[in-house]
Amino acid sequence: MWTIYLLGLLLGTSSAMNMNFLLANGPTYMAANSSIFIPYGNPKYDLKMKLIQVDPHTGLWVNILKGSPGSVLGTHRHYDQVYGYTLKGAWGYREHPEWLSRAGDTIHETPGSVHTLYIDDHHGETETLFFVWGALEFLDEAGNTIAIEDWRSILQKYVDYCQKNQLPIVDLTYPKEKVEDVHFHQHHTTDL
Amino acid sequence: MWTIYLLGLLLGTSSAMNMNFLLANGPTYMAANSSIFIPYGNPKYDLKMKLIQVDPHTGLWVNILKGSPGSVLGTHRHYDQVYGYTLKGAWGYREHPEWLSRAGDTIHETPGSVHTLYIDDHHGETETLFFVWGALEFLDEAGNTIAIEDWRSILQKYVDYCQKNQLPIVDLTYPKEKVEDVHFHQHHTTDL
Amino acid sequence: MWTIYLLGLLLGTSSAMNMNFLLANGPTYMAANSSIFIPYGNPKYDLKMKLIQVDPHTGLWVNILKGSPGSVLGTHRHYDQVYGYTLKGAWGYREHPEWLSRAGDTIHETPGSVHTLYIDDHHGETETLFFVWGALEFLDEAGNTIAIEDWRSILQKYVDYCQKNQLPIVDLTYPKEKVEDVHFHQHHTTDL
Amino acid sequence: MWTIYLLGLLLGTSSAMNMNFLLANGPTYMAANSSIFIPYGNPKYDLKMKLIQVDPHTGLWVNILKGSPGSVLGTHRHYDQVYGYTLKGAWGYREHPEWLSRAGDTIHETPGSVHTLYIDDHHGETETLFFVWGALEFLDEAGNTIAIEDWRSILQKYVDYCQKNQLPIVDLTYPKEKVEDVHFHQHHTTDL
Repeated sequence: MWTIYLLGLLLGTSSAMNMNFLLANGPTYMAANSSIFIPYGNPKYDLKMKLIQVDPHTGLWVNILKGSPGSVLGTHRHYDQVYGYTLKGAWGYREHPEWLSRAGDTIHETPGSVHTLYIDDHHGETETLFFVWGALEFLDEAGNTIAIEDWRSILQKYVDYCQKNQLPIVDLTYPKEKVEDVHFHQHHTTDL
Repeated sequence: MWTIYLLGLLLGTSSAMNMNFLLANGPTYMAANSSIFIPYGNPKYDLKMKLIQVDPHTGLWVNILKGSPGSVLGTHRHYDQVYGYTLKGAWGYREHPEWLSRAGDTIHETPGSVHTLYIDDHHGETETLFFVWGALEFLDEAGNTIAIEDWRSILQKYVDYCQKNQLPIVDLTYPKEKVEDVHFHQHHTTDL
Repeated sequence: MWTIYLLGLLLGTSSAMNMNFLLANGPTYMAANSSIFIPYGNPKYDLKMKLIQVDPHTGLWVNILKGSPGSVLGTHRHYDQVYGYTLKGAWGYREHPEWLSRAGDTIHETPGSVHTLYIDDHHGETETLFFVWGALEFLDEAGNTIAIEDWRSILQKYVDYCQKNQLPIVDLTYPKEKVEDVHFHQHHTTDL
Repeated sequence: MWTIYLLGLLLGTSSAMNMNFLLANGPTYMAANSSIFIPYGNPKYDLKMKLIQVDPHTGLWVNILKGSPGSVLGTHRHYDQVYGYTLKGAWGYREHPEWLSRAGDTIHETPGSVHTLYIDDHHGETETLFFVWGALEFLDEAGNTIAIEDWRSILQKYVDYCQKNQLPIVDLTYPKEKVEDVHFHQHHTTDL
C-alpha cells in the first residue's frame, strides 16, 4: 500500500504544513436516541419524522417517517433519488397502486418522480427508513409549489422543535473529523 | 407546471419520434422475499448477505448483512460511501471501539476508510441494512489486495448461488421503465 | 478476474433467462455538435445554454452556459451540488466578490447555496461547462419561488426549441445499452 | 422563505450553542494555476495529470489529463462513474473504436466499465477534463490488479511531487467553511 507508506514518510518531513487533508474523514455513529420524532406534514394527520443525519456535502437527509393508519403526506415531486426501507406496518404511493410496501420491502424513486404517500389502513403504526437526496417540492392540486423541503429546512424544523420544547439540540450533520489510517504490517510500492 | 403542460402539447405533435425520454424513470418496488440470503465472506464464520438492489448507473448496492455472534468480515477499504442501519443485534468495527451499533443506530463511512467488521458476542443474531456505493477492497494483513467487491461481482455471486441451488433468479437491477407523469388539474407557465 | 470467468460459464448455461443485467452499461459519446445552444434566462440579457447530457437516474444535467459581457442569470438556490469549469471569458457570483472565474478556473457549490451569476464586463463572450445535480430554484427579490429547473424541465426546453425551429431532436439522456466486457487472456478465482 | 426567517430568529436566541451547522458549506474557487501537471502513468509515454480538486466526502477527483499523440493510459476498470470533456486534441478508448473524442465532445462511463485510453496520433497535444468518482483499478493483461487509484492516492502523488520538487503544496480538498445565507428583502412562512 504505497499510500500508507508515503504518508508515514510525509508526516515526518513536512513539519510546517498540516497534512491532515490527506486523511479520510472519520466515521459518524448516531445512536438511535440521538434524535427524536417531531410532528411532520399536515397536522390533521398523525405523521412524525425523526431526522437521523444530514449531509451538507451531498444534500442527503436520512430519516424515519412514522404514521398512523390513514395518514397522508401530500403530493410532492423529487429532484433527486429516494430509497425507502419499511421497518414496520405498510404504506404506499397513491400513484402506484400495484404495490404496498410492508416490513422488509424496499422502494426506489428517481429524480422527477411525483407521488402522494399514504399509510395503509390495516397494518398498524408504520415506520419507514428514508434516504432522501436533494429537495422535495410539495404541490397543490393545480401543481403549484406549496413548499420545498431540503436538508437545511428539515434540519431547521428539528432545531426549532427542540428549542420550543427545551430539548437538547444535536448537530445532525456529518462528518466532522479526520481519522488515522489503518496500519498494515508490511508495505510495498506499486506503479501503474 | 409548464413541464407537464408542454409535455401534453408535445406528445400530440411529435408522432415520428418516441418522446419517452422526457419522462422520469418508474419506481422500483422490491418485496422482502424478492431476494435471498447467500453465504458471504470467510466460510469459517456464519455471515450471510441478502442483496436487495443494485444500481448499474451509480454503482450502489443495497444489502442486508446477517451474522452470528463472533463472526468477522475481513478488513476492507471503501472507495465510496457506506451507510449502515442496524435492524437487530449489535456490531462494530474493530478500528472504532468507541461505539457499538445496536438496533436503530446508524453509521456512515467515507471514501478511503478502512475497517474490520465484527458481530458482537452478546446481542444474538445481527442484521444490518447497508447502502454501499462503489467497491470494497478486501485486504490481507500486509495491506495487499485479496479481492474487490462491486455491484457486478456481488450480483454475480447471487446469480451463481441461485443457479447452483436451482433457485429462481431475479433481476435485482433498476430502474427498468418510464412512467406517466402525474396530472394536475390546472397548469400555468412560469418564466425564469 | 472471477467475474468475467463466471460470466462466460453463465452465459453458456442459462439459455432461458436474459442475463444482460450482469453487464455494465455502455459508454455514452456525445459529439460537440450533437446539441445546440438555446436562449436561456431573462431575454433582456444575452445568455444561451447548450444542454449536453442529462441523467434521469441521478438528476445530473451537463451543460455549457454562454453569455455576453454584463449578462445576468437570476438569483437561484441549488438543492444539490454544482461544478463549473470556465472554458473562456470570465464570470462570477455577486454574492462572492472575492473571486472571478477565468478560463481554466474551477468552482464548486454545495446543496443549499444561493447565488446570482454575472458575466464579467471585460473578458468578452464567456463559456462555462456546468455539472448541475438536482434542481435550481429561481427566486425573486423577496425570496419567493419563480421557477424550478431540473433535468426534465431543461430537457423539455431543448425539445421545444428544436420543434419550434424545425431542428432535429437528439435524445440527450443516457445510458442506453449494455456492453460486452473486456476479455483478459487468463482468469483466476479469488476468495474474500 | 421560512428557513431564512427562522435562522435570524434562532441566531439571536441560542447564544450557548454554535448553530453554524445550519448553514450551507461555502463555495470553492480554484484558480487555473492553483495546481500543476505531474507525470502520470507509464513513464514510457508522455502523460501528465493536473489534479484540480478532490472531494473526501464523495470520493470525486476532478483532473485534466494531458498527453502527446500515441500515449496510452493502461487498461483500467472503474468502480463508479466518469465524465470526460475534451478541451483540445483527440483521444479514445481502444475498446470503443466507434468514436474519437475531439474538442467539445463529452463521454460518460458507468461503474463496472473497463477501457484503455489512447491519445490519437493526428490531433496534437490532447487535454481532457475528467470527473472521476471512486477508484480506478489498473489491470495487467491477465486481468490482475496492478494498482488502485482513488482520491487519496492521487492526492498523495500530487503532494509527493511538490515535495520532491520543492513546490508549494495546495490543499486541494473541499469544501472548508460555512457561508452566510443570502438575505432577501421580505420573508413569509409556508406550511406543507
